Amino acid sequence: MSNEIVRIDPDKRLSDMVECGGTLHLAGQVAEDMKADMKGQTASILRQIDKLLARGGSDKSKILSAVIYVADMRLKPKMDEAWMEWMDPRHSPARATVEARLGSADTVVEIMCVAAK
Amino acid sequence: MSNEIVRIDPDKRLSDMVECGGTLHLAGQVAEDMKADMKGQTASILRQIDKLLARGGSDKSKILSAVIYVADMRLKPKMDEAWMEWMDPRHSPARATVEARLGSADTVVEIMCVAAK
Amino acid sequence: MSNEIVRIDPDKRLSDMVECGGTLHLAGQVAEDMKADMKGQTASILRQIDKLLARGGSDKSKILSAVIYVADMRLKPKMDEAWMEWMDPRHSPARATVEARLGSADTVVEIMCVAAK
Repeated sequence: MSNEIVRIDPDKRLSDMVECGGTLHLAGQVAEDMKADMKGQTASILRQIDKLLARGGSDKSKILSAVIYVADMRLKPKMDEAWMEWMDPRHSPARATVEARLGSADTVVEIMCVAAK
Repeated sequence: MSNEIVRIDPDKRLSDMVECGGTLHLAGQVAEDMKADMKGQTASILRQIDKLLARGGSDKSKILSAVIYVADMRLKPKMDEAWMEWMDPRHSPARATVEARLGSADTVVEIMCVAAK
Repeated sequence: MSNEIVRIDPDKRLSDMVECGGTLHLAGQVAEDMKADMKGQTASILRQIDKLLARGGSDKSKILSAVIYVADMRLKPKMDEAWMEWMDPRHSPARATVEARLGSADTVVEIMCVAAK
């Protein structure tokens, strides 16, 4: 496996995804529609993760780890609803969920993950 | 080294540990006894990490990085007490400690780490 | 690529950097001068990252991912100013920025990253 680095959509702050040595590093994803609620924002993020993984020749069955930042821990069950509808339980990643204020006041969830190719 | 993915105790939310390409990704660990104080919860977490690493054919001398989330930064010295009693200083990982509200009001510390096999 | 683990400046809590299998895991970096403002602290951290990467035979064009913890999200634009002056936009990493209280009241930013060799 080569150690070549491939960057997807690099800009001056970040790349949406970086591939190296068979591992895909995804940037923290936030929802496209910030007016959606916790479940809606989470579902939007998970669709974006699907698209990014597809661009790297991978899919959600190959996610190795994920950190989920929620703006209000009381809404974690709503995040988990969208997550569990999306995730095949045989392929769930190592995961941590912690509370953190995010990039905008309307952002209630952000997910950063690492996947294999 | 194969790129096969092995998941330890996968459920609908997360796997406790995911192995791929010689790297072990551990889920964020919290203490079993939430009535314990910061030092007690940390010691409990570190015992769980020992057990998970053993299941992956590794041990604490091979931890590469760790993120430690503490619910109250003023209690970081108590976390560090348990950490330093456990850690061989020749094999300490890259580490960051930040404050974050965690999954339950009683959870005062959560640790997520990556290790080599 | 060997799975040997090399630890840079290990102490009883953490190593400043850990290398394994061609990947460099850097500890969360904070500024040397805590009296500096957000932009100054960020610039200080980025200089430290340059130095650590150089010790591992790498450089900032090979950063794969970064998590940036800011103590006050309103100051994120000042962090980004220093970041964008430093970063070659063709080589920007996957990145997430979240708000978290940090190790001391004066610490306004901490950056943890992973790089290829």
